[in-house]
Amino acid sequence: MSLKTALLKHLLRQSKISSCAPIVFQYHGHYKHTQTDKDKWKLGRSTAFAILGSVLVGSATNAKKKGSEGDVTEPGAKREDLPIYTAEEVSKHDNKKSFWVTYKHGVYDVTTFLPSHPGGEQIYNAAGLSIEPFWNVYGMHKTEEVFKLLESYRIGNLHEGDVVDHSDDELWAKEPFRDKRLVVKTAKPFNAEIPPKLQVQHFNTPNELFYVRQHMPVPDLDAEQHKLKVVLVGSSTIVREFSLQDLHRFRPATVNAALMCAGNRRSEMNEVKPVKGLSWTTGAVSNAQWSGVYLRDVLEHCGLDMEDVEGKHVIFTGADIDATGEHFSTSIPLRMAVDPAACVLLATGMNGAALPPDHGRPLRAVVPGAPAVRSAKWLQSITVSTEESPSHWHQRDYRSFNPSTTWETADFPAAPPVYSLPVTSAACEPEDGDTVEPVDGHIQVKGYAYSGGGAKVLRVDVSADGGRTWREARLRSDGAAPRAHYAWTLWTVALPVHDAKQMEIWVKATDSNFNTQPEKFDDIWNIRGILSNAYHKIKVNIKR
Amino acid sequence: MSLKTALLKHLLRQSKISSCAPIVFQYHGHYKHTQTDKDKWKLGRSTAFAILGSVLVGSATNAKKKGSEGDVTEPGAKREDLPIYTAEEVSKHDNKKSFWVTYKHGVYDVTTFLPSHPGGEQIYNAAGLSIEPFWNVYGMHKTEEVFKLLESYRIGNLHEGDVVDHSDDELWAKEPFRDKRLVVKTAKPFNAEIPPKLQVQHFNTPNELFYVRQHMPVPDLDAEQHKLKVVLVGSSTIVREFSLQDLHRFRPATVNAALMCAGNRRSEMNEVKPVKGLSWTTGAVSNAQWSGVYLRDVLEHCGLDMEDVEGKHVIFTGADIDATGEHFSTSIPLRMAVDPAACVLLATGMNGAALPPDHGRPLRAVVPGAPAVRSAKWLQSITVSTEESPSHWHQRDYRSFNPSTTWETADFPAAPPVYSLPVTSAACEPEDGDTVEPVDGHIQVKGYAYSGGGAKVLRVDVSADGGRTWREARLRSDGAAPRAHYAWTLWTVALPVHDAKQMEIWVKATDSNFNTQPEKFDDIWNIRGILSNAYHKIKVNIKR
Repeated sequence: MSLKTALLKHLLRQSKISSCAPIVFQYHGHYKHTQTDKDKWKLGRSTAFAILGSVLVGSATNAKKKGSEGDVTEPGAKREDLPIYTAEEVSKHDNKKSFWVTYKHGVYDVTTFLPSHPGGEQIYNAAGLSIEPFWNVYGMHKTEEVFKLLESYRIGNLHEGDVVDHSDDELWAKEPFRDKRLVVKTAKPFNAEIPPKLQVQHFNTPNELFYVRQHMPVPDLDAEQHKLKVVLVGSSTIVREFSLQDLHRFRPATVNAALMCAGNRRSEMNEVKPVKGLSWTTGAVSNAQWSGVYLRDVLEHCGLDMEDVEGKHVIFTGADIDATGEHFSTSIPLRMAVDPAACVLLATGMNGAALPPDHGRPLRAVVPGAPAVRSAKWLQSITVSTEESPSHWHQRDYRSFNPSTTWETADFPAAPPVYSLPVTSAACEPEDGDTVEPVDGHIQVKGYAYSGGGAKVLRVDVSADGGRTWREARLRSDGAAPRAHYAWTLWTVALPVHDAKQMEIWVKATDSNFNTQPEKFDDIWNIRGILSNAYHKIKVNIKR
Repeated sequence: MSLKTALLKHLLRQSKISSCAPIVFQYHGHYKHTQTDKDKWKLGRSTAFAILGSVLVGSATNAKKKGSEGDVTEPGAKREDLPIYTAEEVSKHDNKKSFWVTYKHGVYDVTTFLPSHPGGEQIYNAAGLSIEPFWNVYGMHKTEEVFKLLESYRIGNLHEGDVVDHSDDELWAKEPFRDKRLVVKTAKPFNAEIPPKLQVQHFNTPNELFYVRQHMPVPDLDAEQHKLKVVLVGSSTIVREFSLQDLHRFRPATVNAALMCAGNRRSEMNEVKPVKGLSWTTGAVSNAQWSGVYLRDVLEHCGLDMEDVEGKHVIFTGADIDATGEHFSTSIPLRMAVDPAACVLLATGMNGAALPPDHGRPLRAVVPGAPAVRSAKWLQSITVSTEESPSHWHQRDYRSFNPSTTWETADFPAAPPVYSLPVTSAACEPEDGDTVEPVDGHIQVKGYAYSGGGAKVLRVDVSADGGRTWREARLRSDGAAPRAHYAWTLWTVALPVHDAKQMEIWVKATDSNFNTQPEKFDDIWNIRGILSNAYHKIKVNIKR
């Protein structure tokens, strides 16, 4: 069973859906879904979708309200002290004034929670319905914290005859094999870090150790059959289609580039004040040599006017779909896409091998210097238009806010999309909390540094005395020049050990624009916990 | 009398020189000077010259030694308590073991000062001689602090018959008229800021208010006669020459770009720990529309292989000369020079007018996004070679060091030259210390923000409560896209006034790479006081 069929089957299991509406899926292009019943599904792609595609771990505790506080051992278990509602009764509470959902046997009135849903309006897809099909795709909801929050809204039990098995086995049946050394943050979708010590072992991260960041189940695509559709929207719209063989007729291109999640090191920012998002430590970045062809060449071949790029965007759409059938999609400015120095690739290879399924097999975008979310995987269409991607991943996430912006005041459409990354660094070996034995009165510290937008790391300074003195680390990078430098930089430094039993080590990098990292997270704090690039600080114990 | 003749005359006034050596000046290309006597002048261009071309103000007090402490009212005045030496006797102390100089009637043994001379080996040009001809060009020595330091090395009086009039009148006779509103930091050479309130009055700074940073006297060049020599060094070296008329046959180019001294805001860094350099506040940056032709086009026309640019440099040489006859020179990587997005110009116009003399008339380089020193004025030659500029301005200044590097440990050749600038900002109106009357419970604050390397300022945050809350300012910039955005950004914000009699206002900017400013100067401190981009903080008094 294909992913699409599995998802469709899940949606149809929703008793309300199966009893009423025609659901239309269009495959090539984008899925569309229509349901006549109460316009519930009309939200579709044109509505400002919100961030359910992103992740909610961290703190969802802001909006606690009174109710039966999570004293239930199993979420959604039957509770004898509460009334029973039928699915039909639940389905009437499908609006902002009264908003109910179900989970297994539980019925929940989450009306007051709506404004603080990190995924914004995406939650309206589940109005009066079971949240299970959605949470099966956005598995990051399934944490103790979120279940506890959910149970705090519990008002009743779902009528026994209306309880449906929403097992997610089929959705995730085709997930690829993963290396056991990866540190799993969420299993479904699969999000995992590379452990710090493995990060600094190789300049190019082995494919099986490259950190993984998925929004949805991994599509199982056939490279032989795969087609890339290219659409240039204009007075006369151009549409072209390429097989992988067609693409390989363009001049081959490679680029050495780190990909880093915009949320890398979020866990440190979370310590200042809770943020919403996957609790990445320093492991959401890896480096690889990507191979394929230049996006620029393909667009030029399709007839793009290379002199008319300002104000336009390239929308990437992947084959991965969410619980509503919407495809993952994001965009970058066309100017960036065609800038020869930006080296934007349509990649089929990673470190000399075919792309692994977790990294976009058989085709992905690689946008060096940008947050990894822009390097869309399982790429099936490219659209050049005057609009940015309308997807909620693009419109309602990966945007920059100042520390005083709250979920209530955030104006997503007005906020700048993040197309580059600031300079950052981390100490990886030893790790925080390790015990280290000095050799000749010194300990060796290793780590990485990186800067987006084509900037090159020129210096890494390390301090073991709270910033009073800084030692320059020895750097290892590739030979690419600044403005078109996309690989990370590995570094090593020997620190003298004095009498201390514990050392606190600070690291900060300076890039070729002479930007440096801020010392602390307070003033770069933001609701989504992205761009978390203050000094990295670890404590290590010294063995005597 | 031309500048060259004036300088020559000054050098010839040195009794030792006039009594011995052939001094050879070659005009087109570079001056060379040879003096057989004791090889004193052989340092020339090939030696690693040091920073006399830069400025010494700030603190020159590190290396105080015992001696007759500055109790002399007039520097270089006769002192009855000290012995008399002839110029010939003084001239024997011309080496590191014994190093004497004279100033007016004074004789000084500065041997122990040599290692801490901020201008490095440049001082050896004055070995056994009067320092007056050099200080006439590098007038920033003529401060009370430096004179006091000099007198602390006083050992005697120069024989009356050897005292020569080193008046500097002729050297500076052709200096252009300057607007009285500029805030003069040093008169000879002329270095002046634009006052903060005038900075934010115009998006493009009027030419007469554009801040001025000179290393030497302003050359008086004839636009009709001016020639630009272009040399492409290679297996068969190419040499071309262009009049301004010739240059104007290339397609016209304009770029809106701020130019900022790498030392802008040095005075704030100096408060942490003294640094060496002109004590700029926030006024060493201005914005203009530059017009001319693309350097790229000219180089391509001359036959440059545009595919063979890595590891090469473009050396700019100006018509301005120092006390040894050396021309100002600096270089940028060739890759940057030919990158279409970098918009490097050979400029003849500024805000629609011909370049004023203070800004390079009739021809200068404009390297947008780089420290202004790379935008060489009075441009007379361009050399493409595998070497960076050998000048001391390039080799011994405008390089980046970490806070723990001292003048003793600084390894200039190994340190990265500064070809870009980090994100910065400043509040300009009100100024620090102003008294402001609130309107409707608010005060308006205005300022600028800027980021180098083509980055665009995306947000300016202002705090009036020590960083607890931040308010986003309204921005005014031009329409250029990130990666090729070179203008500054002006900003305005209304801050609510509560009960305080005084408000401390903090400002920080975030650019399109999402880099931000560091909060404090401590960890970006460097010996030269450049790249001084921590938060700008002002205190204003509130009128009740």
